[in-house]
Amino acid sequence: MSAAEFARGIRERRTAIGYWVVMDAPVATERLGHLGYDYVALDAQHGLLGYSGILNGLMAVDAGGTSVGMVRVEANDPTAIGRALDAGAGGVIVPMVDSAQDAAAAVSACRYPPRGQRSYGPMRAMLRVGPRPAESDASTLVIAMIETSRGLDSVEEICATPGLDGVYVGPSDLSLAIGGAYPGDPDVAETFDAALSRISRAAAASGIAAGIHTPNGEVAARRLGEGYTFATVASDVVHLEQAARHHLAVARGEGDQ
Amino acid sequence: MSAAEFARGIRERRTAIGYWVVMDAPVATERLGHLGYDYVALDAQHGLLGYSGILNGLMAVDAGGTSVGMVRVEANDPTAIGRALDAGAGGVIVPMVDSAQDAAAAVSACRYPPRGQRSYGPMRAMLRVGPRPAESDASTLVIAMIETSRGLDSVEEICATPGLDGVYVGPSDLSLAIGGAYPGDPDVAETFDAALSRISRAAAASGIAAGIHTPNGEVAARRLGEGYTFATVASDVVHLEQAARHHLAVARGEGDQ
Amino acid sequence: MSAAEFARGIRERRTAIGYWVVMDAPVATERLGHLGYDYVALDAQHGLLGYSGILNGLMAVDAGGTSVGMVRVEANDPTAIGRALDAGAGGVIVPMVDSAQDAAAAVSACRYPPRGQRSYGPMRAMLRVGPRPAESDASTLVIAMIETSRGLDSVEEICATPGLDGVYVGPSDLSLAIGGAYPGDPDVAETFDAALSRISRAAAASGIAAGIHTPNGEVAARRLGEGYTFATVASDVVHLEQAARHHLAVARGEGDQ
Amino acid sequence: MSAAEFARGIRERRTAIGYWVVMDAPVATERLGHLGYDYVALDAQHGLLGYSGILNGLMAVDAGGTSVGMVRVEANDPTAIGRALDAGAGGVIVPMVDSAQDAAAAVSACRYPPRGQRSYGPMRAMLRVGPRPAESDASTLVIAMIETSRGLDSVEEICATPGLDGVYVGPSDLSLAIGGAYPGDPDVAETFDAALSRISRAAAASGIAAGIHTPNGEVAARRLGEGYTFATVASDVVHLEQAARHHLAVARGEGDQ
Amino acid sequence: MSAAEFARGIRERRTAIGYWVVMDAPVATERLGHLGYDYVALDAQHGLLGYSGILNGLMAVDAGGTSVGMVRVEANDPTAIGRALDAGAGGVIVPMVDSAQDAAAAVSACRYPPRGQRSYGPMRAMLRVGPRPAESDASTLVIAMIETSRGLDSVEEICATPGLDGVYVGPSDLSLAIGGAYPGDPDVAETFDAALSRISRAAAASGIAAGIHTPNGEVAARRLGEGYTFATVASDVVHLEQAARHHLAVARGEGDQ
Amino acid sequence: MSAAEFARGIRERRTAIGYWVVMDAPVATERLGHLGYDYVALDAQHGLLGYSGILNGLMAVDAGGTSVGMVRVEANDPTAIGRALDAGAGGVIVPMVDSAQDAAAAVSACRYPPRGQRSYGPMRAMLRVGPRPAESDASTLVIAMIETSRGLDSVEEICATPGLDGVYVGPSDLSLAIGGAYPGDPDVAETFDAALSRISRAAAASGIAAGIHTPNGEVAARRLGEGYTFATVASDVVHLEQAARHHLAVARGEGDQ
Repeated sequence: MSAAEFARGIRERRTAIGYWVVMDAPVATERLGHLGYDYVALDAQHGLLGYSGILNGLMAVDAGGTSVGMVRVEANDPTAIGRALDAGAGGVIVPMVDSAQDAAAAVSACRYPPRGQRSYGPMRAMLRVGPRPAESDASTLVIAMIETSRGLDSVEEICATPGLDGVYVGPSDLSLAIGGAYPGDPDVAETFDAALSRISRAAAASGIAAGIHTPNGEVAARRLGEGYTFATVASDVVHLEQAARHHLAVARGEGDQ
Repeated sequence: MSAAEFARGIRERRTAIGYWVVMDAPVATERLGHLGYDYVALDAQHGLLGYSGILNGLMAVDAGGTSVGMVRVEANDPTAIGRALDAGAGGVIVPMVDSAQDAAAAVSACRYPPRGQRSYGPMRAMLRVGPRPAESDASTLVIAMIETSRGLDSVEEICATPGLDGVYVGPSDLSLAIGGAYPGDPDVAETFDAALSRISRAAAASGIAAGIHTPNGEVAARRLGEGYTFATVASDVVHLEQAARHHLAVARGEGDQ
Repeated sequence: MSAAEFARGIRERRTAIGYWVVMDAPVATERLGHLGYDYVALDAQHGLLGYSGILNGLMAVDAGGTSVGMVRVEANDPTAIGRALDAGAGGVIVPMVDSAQDAAAAVSACRYPPRGQRSYGPMRAMLRVGPRPAESDASTLVIAMIETSRGLDSVEEICATPGLDGVYVGPSDLSLAIGGAYPGDPDVAETFDAALSRISRAAAASGIAAGIHTPNGEVAARRLGEGYTFATVASDVVHLEQAARHHLAVARGEGDQ
Repeated sequence: MSAAEFARGIRERRTAIGYWVVMDAPVATERLGHLGYDYVALDAQHGLLGYSGILNGLMAVDAGGTSVGMVRVEANDPTAIGRALDAGAGGVIVPMVDSAQDAAAAVSACRYPPRGQRSYGPMRAMLRVGPRPAESDASTLVIAMIETSRGLDSVEEICATPGLDGVYVGPSDLSLAIGGAYPGDPDVAETFDAALSRISRAAAASGIAAGIHTPNGEVAARRLGEGYTFATVASDVVHLEQAARHHLAVARGEGDQ
Repeated sequence: MSAAEFARGIRERRTAIGYWVVMDAPVATERLGHLGYDYVALDAQHGLLGYSGILNGLMAVDAGGTSVGMVRVEANDPTAIGRALDAGAGGVIVPMVDSAQDAAAAVSACRYPPRGQRSYGPMRAMLRVGPRPAESDASTLVIAMIETSRGLDSVEEICATPGLDGVYVGPSDLSLAIGGAYPGDPDVAETFDAALSRISRAAAASGIAAGIHTPNGEVAARRLGEGYTFATVASDVVHLEQAARHHLAVARGEGDQ
Repeated sequence: MSAAEFARGIRERRTAIGYWVVMDAPVATERLGHLGYDYVALDAQHGLLGYSGILNGLMAVDAGGTSVGMVRVEANDPTAIGRALDAGAGGVIVPMVDSAQDAAAAVSACRYPPRGQRSYGPMRAMLRVGPRPAESDASTLVIAMIETSRGLDSVEEICATPGLDGVYVGPSDLSLAIGGAYPGDPDVAETFDAALSRISRAAAASGIAAGIHTPNGEVAARRLGEGYTFATVASDVVHLEQAARHHLAVARGEGDQ
């Protein structure tokens, strides 16, 4: 799937499933980009990757051949966004968007003048998208994360931001934002579910996609069933650790853990 | 567990379970070294790691805190063996050992004079083992792989090599060596099982450990039950790919694959 | 020493001695983390390390086994602070804090809601601290640097910032800030000494720790004697250069320099 | 040429020719720094280099022996500027300067107190410039990019900023800023030429240097003939691709492309 | 073009044109793999790439999408050959082949039992070729370099080696081998031309491909016209240096050099 | 000092002092190459550097500007030697030379035909030495290590090897070779001193240089006084650790250790 096709799909609110990468291991990322996921997202905020990890990771996704590389940037900052897009990301997932103004800033950082303020120099991106600014803008997704209490409070305004392609739920931060003592705290489960519904409804009302982070395929399937457009399964290091822990228990005859 | 304790355990033929690393991702390797495996082995032969991957991987295992770092060296070559040990490996797994002479060469490469011909310069190793040659030799394991037809033919002589601490089965190569068309070819299953028995018996007869490569905890448990002393579960990239493939199928509602 | 114990010690104003790392050389950093220093600080502001240097350096400190890894972040910026903490830093030393407002921003960046605004994703940190936000906050130190004229003028207010664990003097910048022509300019020695006293008194008045950068053990001992709680000896590249210069002079029979 | 001599030349508006590096390949950068260019600029904004690419690139330029290393920083941000200068850049080219205030901020980030607010710690820089703040300031160039419509509108005020050493045209962004549909759009050629003239005249009126980005030696020569003080030929990856494309066509007997 | 198709083409002596990479710059290599060359060869012998450069370079070629990645291994050594193939090379160019015995050793290192002695573990290779040994052997090229006086003397026997897919001329070494004072020495031009003819005739007589290293498209076209099957244009760093040198001369108004 | 001048000096048995690098930290190596040492040697055998560490280290030495970069190769192997020289080493120190035949092999690996069998491709080396084979050979040093019992027994024959430029003592290995229980074992001090004398006399008798590894400037001065031509002070990681240990003791008021 090309970045342009993927962008079109998200804008048409077609279902998509992605995988989340937090480690700088292109050899693994290439394989993850070979399995048929619609996208592979590299996490520059909480992930253990620096700039070269993002760059090499995007190349690895492209070498894998079946997925579009996305980047969750480290901040809602035009420099960080421009660097990810120049390196060849098909789009950015922007953390900590608190308001429509924040969302508009993210959009502006992804679009060339006169549509925005992105600076021109798509060094690696031009290999796949072509050098024309308008063409590039058309195939570049900008997704705002809803994960703070202010963001949740403003989710309808955020979703209405012109040019925004989608919102994305960060469940751990959202969980703390609504008063949980830790991610997944059952004491706030009802509030959490209500928040998820509010977010996906707000996206639908504005005709944009709603995405969400999930720990495994089961939760991903459930969220898609609940009205989310796209869901990411996370993450490489965690799944590897789970597998290794499982095999150790089995090898020791302790059954699964 | 210290390298010295691990070496003692293997020499006393105490059961051990390890994990196999083929990617240069210290962040993942640190976690794998945190789970309670007896050892984590870094594969410098078929693994996708160069020298710095081995060096950083050994540091990551030590940072993990529960496992001893081992290296499957790229060849039965004194330079490769010395480099792995200087970098802090608790021992080496030496591929393609065809004869007692090969095994003796591997042993010699791991021991300082007058016990062998290792050159002195344990740059990173000395942080954990101490600088005394005899002390270092005592805590360093040397394991010969049995994976060729010549090696299988000579397994009793190989096991009898003075100073050798164990043998280790590479099932894929062994499978091809005995006439399989591919690793795990069922057409040679009987011959393969007989070979495994012969190898573990030869080790037992010489009072040394027999180890084996396995794809998962189930097979590891079975091999330990069949008389193998230690078993490695392999490998990081494969397990990660399996997990990601599984989650994709589930997320798509296709059930497991 | 665990990060939690170290944090407790600093909060109780117990003496601590650290070492300062400015180069991306995990092999050296591991050794420095093996010598018994209470902490090893990696300098992301003036040090010659990028993100991967910080990440690998923190792993190297942990592999060393005796010190807690700290990071002097590149700026008083929540993204920089979050990245260092997620990578496993036991705390951050925040440069160029000019006011109580700056200090409060630094504190907020280190604490999860409702105590602050840190985003959740302690990828490597969770290996040692546990995933609970409150537990993580309790073991994470936030230290504000006093090194500008505005910072010095506001040191009492800065020290009174709720949640701040300590202040830290950057002598070179402070020296220029008070009018020195170069770091260590004797023409401003008296003013400099007065500033140091003011800073340690302000910290003591607020019951928080006062730390300081020093070029060697002699100055560190002196500062601790003058009322500073913790002192860092700096730095790897400089000490190595001093040693190499000394050996060259001696080898040439020129005596020491 | 030393950084101090190069800085003096630019301040005296002597002609200089540079080369532009966008890839992290020190082996290539060293060669580029060996050919006699006055400067080699490493692009931290659109270039495919992270921090270690900038650091190693600056070392490579110095190893090359004939050029001064410059950095186009990723943003007009004191942290980014300080990091580049500490790593040994002879000066910075600051993107997206929109106003005299922006230019003054860039200048301040390059100068130590009392001339500005640069924090002291010239880790690698001190190898070539000496540790004295005033001496360092004297040999450090600060160049503001004119590439936005706001920047063009304010070019005379920007050029008059005390301490600014030059302005630098980013033709692609400027082209979009004045209404081009893509870089080099002939529909805006006249406006573009007028903008270039305005910029070089503004620089001349303030007695500072005017520099410009160019795709090849021909355009560089033309711009120098039109009154520009310095011109950079760009860039490594593009020129390599052009050469490889040419050789393929010739090898296939398709003539040149 | 897939590796299998490329191998078939070479075995059928169809013309192919490649590009030669000596630097560790995946960003450039990806572009070179995007231009339509039949293959891109990474030089592990004289190139400035270590293992990770080869691995990342092969991924970059695959990301480029139009070429097959080949590796000129550092020596005729089964470990070096196995490492390159496991990393995903479509074949190896083996230096310093002096005899039919050397050629047979190279072939054996590229083929799994019972056809040869390659050890099984195609970690990255299996992403594109499939895990079956016979299938892998069928799509893997083994090319022997003729570049020494002994190799030239035995070229007919070398070409007749069963399983060898081609020979490849290293003109610099060959030039010295036949008595030249330096590569390209005109004093030995006639002998050199005779050697080239002898080599391509020997390959043709055995029905295998003859390839050759060339400095540019012109020479490549000439060699293909003289009966060579494939020609590589070399190399990245040299072409970049030529371009930069040219642009400097033009920019200075010195005309071309 | 150029490599050619340094080579001439060693061949004329002029005194030289070097520094030994075992870590991959170009930033430190550049400083070490800035202090006035005649040479800086990078240790590819026991040092914690892979190929890219050697390559970047040689560039760092050149950037430092006062020393020639040497490489202690990992083995007496033509591939290892060729790689170090192509990367720009001024010469190689070859470990574990046991016989005149070994020494002749090392010489041959350093010289182009007809003087030896080095393969042509001085990718980085040509930046400083020029591309002519004879010129390159003239400026390239080949030094054989005497550190085994066989090597000591054959030292006179080794020193007489045509083309060999010097011998070099590895005291740790030599110490074990003559029966010491550990490097520096006082029980073999007399035998050790006799061996040192024998080696320097053998070198003098053949008119070649004798070099030796030393832990500090004091021992280096002593060895030069005893007739050694050149001495290396070792090493970076050790000296840094010594300094850090000293400062910690002083800071704690424990006096020096």
